[in-house]
Amino acid sequence: MSTPTALQAAFADSPLSVNRLAAVQVQALLAQADALRLKVHRDARGITFVDAGIATRGSTEAGLRIAEICMGGLGQVGLSSRADSGWADWPSWVEVRSAQPVLACLASQYAGWSLSASKEEAGGKKFFSLGSGPARALAQKEALYAELGYRDSAEAAVLVLEVDREPPPVVLDKILRDCGLQPAQLTIILTPTRSLAGTTQVVGRVLEVALHKAHELHFPLEQIVDGSASAPLPTPAADGLEAMGRTNDAILYGGRVHLTVDADDAAARQLAQQLPSLNSRDYGKGFAEIFKAADYDFYKIDGALFAPAEVWVSSLQSGATFHGGHCHFELLRAQWQAGS
Amino acid sequence: MSTPTALQAAFADSPLSVNRLAAVQVQALLAQADALRLKVHRDARGITFVDAGIATRGSTEAGLRIAEICMGGLGQVGLSSRADSGWADWPSWVEVRSAQPVLACLASQYAGWSLSASKEEAGGKKFFSLGSGPARALAQKEALYAELGYRDSAEAAVLVLEVDREPPPVVLDKILRDCGLQPAQLTIILTPTRSLAGTTQVVGRVLEVALHKAHELHFPLEQIVDGSASAPLPTPAADGLEAMGRTNDAILYGGRVHLTVDADDAAARQLAQQLPSLNSRDYGKGFAEIFKAADYDFYKIDGALFAPAEVWVSSLQSGATFHGGHCHFELLRAQWQAGS
Amino acid sequence: MSTPTALQAAFADSPLSVNRLAAVQVQALLAQADALRLKVHRDARGITFVDAGIATRGSTEAGLRIAEICMGGLGQVGLSSRADSGWADWPSWVEVRSAQPVLACLASQYAGWSLSASKEEAGGKKFFSLGSGPARALAQKEALYAELGYRDSAEAAVLVLEVDREPPPVVLDKILRDCGLQPAQLTIILTPTRSLAGTTQVVGRVLEVALHKAHELHFPLEQIVDGSASAPLPTPAADGLEAMGRTNDAILYGGRVHLTVDADDAAARQLAQQLPSLNSRDYGKGFAEIFKAADYDFYKIDGALFAPAEVWVSSLQSGATFHGGHCHFELLRAQWQAGS
Repeated sequence: MSTPTALQAAFADSPLSVNRLAAVQVQALLAQADALRLKVHRDARGITFVDAGIATRGSTEAGLRIAEICMGGLGQVGLSSRADSGWADWPSWVEVRSAQPVLACLASQYAGWSLSASKEEAGGKKFFSLGSGPARALAQKEALYAELGYRDSAEAAVLVLEVDREPPPVVLDKILRDCGLQPAQLTIILTPTRSLAGTTQVVGRVLEVALHKAHELHFPLEQIVDGSASAPLPTPAADGLEAMGRTNDAILYGGRVHLTVDADDAAARQLAQQLPSLNSRDYGKGFAEIFKAADYDFYKIDGALFAPAEVWVSSLQSGATFHGGHCHFELLRAQWQAGS
Repeated sequence: MSTPTALQAAFADSPLSVNRLAAVQVQALLAQADALRLKVHRDARGITFVDAGIATRGSTEAGLRIAEICMGGLGQVGLSSRADSGWADWPSWVEVRSAQPVLACLASQYAGWSLSASKEEAGGKKFFSLGSGPARALAQKEALYAELGYRDSAEAAVLVLEVDREPPPVVLDKILRDCGLQPAQLTIILTPTRSLAGTTQVVGRVLEVALHKAHELHFPLEQIVDGSASAPLPTPAADGLEAMGRTNDAILYGGRVHLTVDADDAAARQLAQQLPSLNSRDYGKGFAEIFKAADYDFYKIDGALFAPAEVWVSSLQSGATFHGGHCHFELLRAQWQAGS
Repeated sequence: MSTPTALQAAFADSPLSVNRLAAVQVQALLAQADALRLKVHRDARGITFVDAGIATRGSTEAGLRIAEICMGGLGQVGLSSRADSGWADWPSWVEVRSAQPVLACLASQYAGWSLSASKEEAGGKKFFSLGSGPARALAQKEALYAELGYRDSAEAAVLVLEVDREPPPVVLDKILRDCGLQPAQLTIILTPTRSLAGTTQVVGRVLEVALHKAHELHFPLEQIVDGSASAPLPTPAADGLEAMGRTNDAILYGGRVHLTVDADDAAARQLAQQLPSLNSRDYGKGFAEIFKAADYDFYKIDGALFAPAEVWVSSLQSGATFHGGHCHFELLRAQWQAGS
């Protein structure tokens, strides 16, 4: 056995179960399904499905609750609607915070579990989704978990899928098998990109996007001890590409993140400088346009782009706060608000 | 039987009971009565009365909770007090949101149930109040309910009255009869216009005012699927007329509403243009002054005035957001804040 | 027996128990200790200790919850992180409100119970702390309680200490004796000045600081019936003096308070004029610098300085709102944010 890294030492023995913490919130979601415009059903095997925007309208409120579930019960997600006197005068803002940003955002919320089925397996139409939420921490199918050293164990799990249909049986089988669960122990929440709940829960990833970028920059994750963030909430676009573009733009050009780190000034300053989206060569263009120019291939997009617009990094070693990036609200308003 | 309208089809079979959902919040209110400066008593027959500002001071916090009760448990109402750098720099803002704006605002919160008693019936002083809150949906005394097709059924009900004394027996009898309830099943919350709770719960109607105006404009209500709003919170004025004027002004000149609609661009644009208060010929004057000029007769006031100052309407069909109106904060500050 | 004062008449017979109300919140805090990065243990005698930042990191979230506990369950404390377009563009703001500001802030939250032990008694290093929170209202060791006429009685108590070690046995004995409690009935929360939770719960005193200053100005406390406030949240500084300076600066130069009073215009205007920190001769300098210049002696500092930067006082008698003071955000940013 190799010596655990600092990261593994921080999370390997965590007593926190993202699935158990989220289970309480899932129960509340189910209890309020009608009020939140959700449809809930159990399939023949006993898996619980929450439709948050396919055969039902869903809601922004549902998206906020689903974002908290996605963070494994370790984050707070709310909506702010009060006035602002200047560029930030947009009617709806998502606010997120977590006292456990690494577990909440990376070990739970990040959409990293690749789930796919061929045309044949999936009843005529290929299925692909990047699963997010607590169930990932049971399945342990991503390299990230070995790196974190975090493994959940729980009697029930919840998975969030940004899709517009239920996964085919072959994918459900895989999820159950990888999680080691019986069907009755699994809840799957479906949030289509073009739904209110889908849009809201993706914008609710603004803090997670910062954590992911910090990871890409090789910042030691165990040093990130507290986080809060906000981003403006767009309306889902009619077109799927544009809808995806908007939620990304909300974060890239309107996302603001405050990270508190147990690191020295040099490391905190560097993170504040390197983290924001303006470090990308693609900064300044709408995400849908960038994605199109990349032939709809995520892997051709400059990875530096996936970041919030603006960041504050506070060093707990010195108490200094470093600031980087800035919002680009004209771009958002130009795309989201029609001339009147 | 005639074919149900689209509106009736949307709400006739709703499984949501505004009275049952509110009952949980009423219990919490009663449990915290002392902390919220409320006085609770049962009359000889068993009706529960919550005095939120007559023989007791009440509080802003109580007003927030009562506003949620008034929305039938289908809305969130909070207070924001953080700084703003410009015109919106007022210390207290009410924020409201709902995933069920039609049921929350029109089927429950709207003050539409006319309750009156003559001088003789009311012990020497005429009684008049427009009842609001969940009990309306049991009583079904307003044409609106036939239009909505919504009818609640519940074992308990709560009614909110903006009055400074308890209703006389004849009115109580009528409420019980129309709701089909025993006295022990009824809670009545009294929030005088000039109280903290009264002021707060009226400003908490900022979203409802937008729904009501949309209805007046014949916008199809079933197409309004999500809503959020904010308005600045004034201090109750000493004078009853002025106190009523302030809560109206808070909405007419400081209210901001975001509606999400399942409608096309033309309809969304038109709603955004026609909804705001500046469409009224009376826009620009304080409400107390307008009311006085109308000989204290609501029906002489231009109906177009009853609307929030500023509105965003987002079309779910296109994803476009249309904006209309603007706040007129100088008017509010001139009336609310004394020169120092 | 002398006739009770108006203040005593207002609070002597209060049915509210700050310790009983806080006990529910303490239980929730203990249940979420891991998520909030707290360490909980019982000593040999049975006293429960919550370490919020000594041998563990703690969190901002924990600080918010501890601030609510400190207010005896009679206040709401939250975090706002949305954008502002101007001087108030700081990523994290604490918001506080209370429907019972006198009991919440003065009878519970104020750090007024002097607890000390000599070098000999305290195992080699002098111990000193100003205890805050509900337990003060059981112990009744401060003149303030006779003035308020408020005395709590409860089966359990919670005390908050801004220290970086547990109190020595002699201090624990004193606390138990003065409160009339058995060890198993006492919970002590430790929030070091330089911790996230410590910083947050001190900034969460922004409303309390206004109440305390109003008291110093001999404003009749029973006339303060409602309060809300906000202040920017700094990062704890590495140096203890500077860390203390920052939380004070957050309030002195960034704190904004709205008080609603049952007083006439003259009294409300005078309170708005006299309350803000700019009435102090020391206004404009950082608190750490002022404290140093005062030879580290609180009693040499101008008492007028301990106040929020900006205040609105609303008269319930007239409905007028008076404004005084202003924020000095350049000073905060210069000290908190490093050039990038």
